[in-house]
Amino acid sequence: MPIKSRIRTVPDYPKKGIMFRDITTLIKDPVGFRLVIDNMTQHYLSNGVDFDAIVGIESRGFILGGALAYTLGKGFVPVRKPGKLPADVVQLEYELEYGTDKIEMHTDALVQGQRVLLVDDLLATGGTALAAAGLVEKLGGVVASMAFIVNLPDIGGEKKIREKGYNIYFLTEFEGD
Amino acid sequence: MPIKSRIRTVPDYPKKGIMFRDITTLIKDPVGFRLVIDNMTQHYLSNGVDFDAIVGIESRGFILGGALAYTLGKGFVPVRKPGKLPADVVQLEYELEYGTDKIEMHTDALVQGQRVLLVDDLLATGGTALAAAGLVEKLGGVVASMAFIVNLPDIGGEKKIREKGYNIYFLTEFEGD
Repeated sequence: MPIKSRIRTVPDYPKKGIMFRDITTLIKDPVGFRLVIDNMTQHYLSNGVDFDAIVGIESRGFILGGALAYTLGKGFVPVRKPGKLPADVVQLEYELEYGTDKIEMHTDALVQGQRVLLVDDLLATGGTALAAAGLVEKLGGVVASMAFIVNLPDIGGEKKIREKGYNIYFLTEFEGD
Repeated sequence: MPIKSRIRTVPDYPKKGIMFRDITTLIKDPVGFRLVIDNMTQHYLSNGVDFDAIVGIESRGFILGGALAYTLGKGFVPVRKPGKLPADVVQLEYELEYGTDKIEMHTDALVQGQRVLLVDDLLATGGTALAAAGLVEKLGGVVASMAFIVNLPDIGGEKKIREKGYNIYFLTEFEGD
C-alpha cells in the first residue's frame, strides 16, 4: 500500500469526530507523487475511456489535474469557487452537510459534446463532484470519468455517483469514516 | 508568441482599469499547456538551478506546480490560504494594495536547508511570491528560483524580487499594466 501508507490522517479536522485524510504527505514525496500520477495515467491510457480535457476541482484537484493534463496530453479546465474566474461564468449551487456552496466554470471552457475527465483528491459525500459534473453538462460537456486519489466508501459518495451512471476511478480507500 | 497569444485579456477585472491576464485560455489548449510545461521543464533541467521540491501558490500555482513536479521528478508542497491545511501550520501576513492577506504552509512541509522552486501563474506586485518565500525561509528552506508564466514588469514585482537576490524565470510579459 505505497499510496495509502503515505497519506496522513489528522483527527478532528475540520471538526471533532472527522478523520481527515491529508494527501499533502503523499504528494510532497517525489515517489508518492509519481505513484499517483503514473497509476492514474496508466489507468486512463489503457481502460478505453475517451476524453478531450481534464477538469480539476479547486484547489487540490488542480495539483492532480495539472499533472494529468501533462501526462495525458490534454488541456486543463478549472472548476472554481465563486468570483475567481475573470470572464463570463456559469454557476451551480449545491447542498453541503450544513448550508450550500457554489462553483463556477467559464462559459467558454468547453465545447458542445466535449468529453472530460473530472479530477479531485478525495471522494466523500460526492456533493462537489456531482455539482462539477452538473456544470460540465450545463456547458454541453460529457463526464467520461471521475478520478480521485482517495475514496471514503462509507460516506456514500461513490454509491450516489455510480447510481447516476458515472464511471469512477480511485487509488485507495479509507473505510469506517 | 505561441504562449502570449493564447492568453486572454479581460478588461476591468477584478476592478475598473485592470487588464486581467487570464491563463485559462492558454492552459485549456493542450498545445498551450504543453508549451508552458515543457518550456519551464527544459529551462530548469538545463540552467543548473538545483532544488528538491516544487512549492505551488494556491490556486493557479497548483496547476503549474503539479505538472512541473511530475516532469521534474520532485514532490509538491502547497502554500495555502488560511484554514485550508489540516495539520500544524506556519503563517505569514503580507501587505496587499488595500489591507493584508495571510498564507500558510504545514510546519513539516520542508526540512532544514531544502531547496525549492516556487511557482505561480503571474508576477505582478510580487507580494504573494515574497510572502511565500518568507514562509519557505521560516521553515528553514531555500528559494532556489521562482517561476511564473506571466510577468507584469511595470507593476514592479520583478524588480523587488530581483533586488532581494532571488532567481526568477517567466515565459512572457505584458508591459504597460
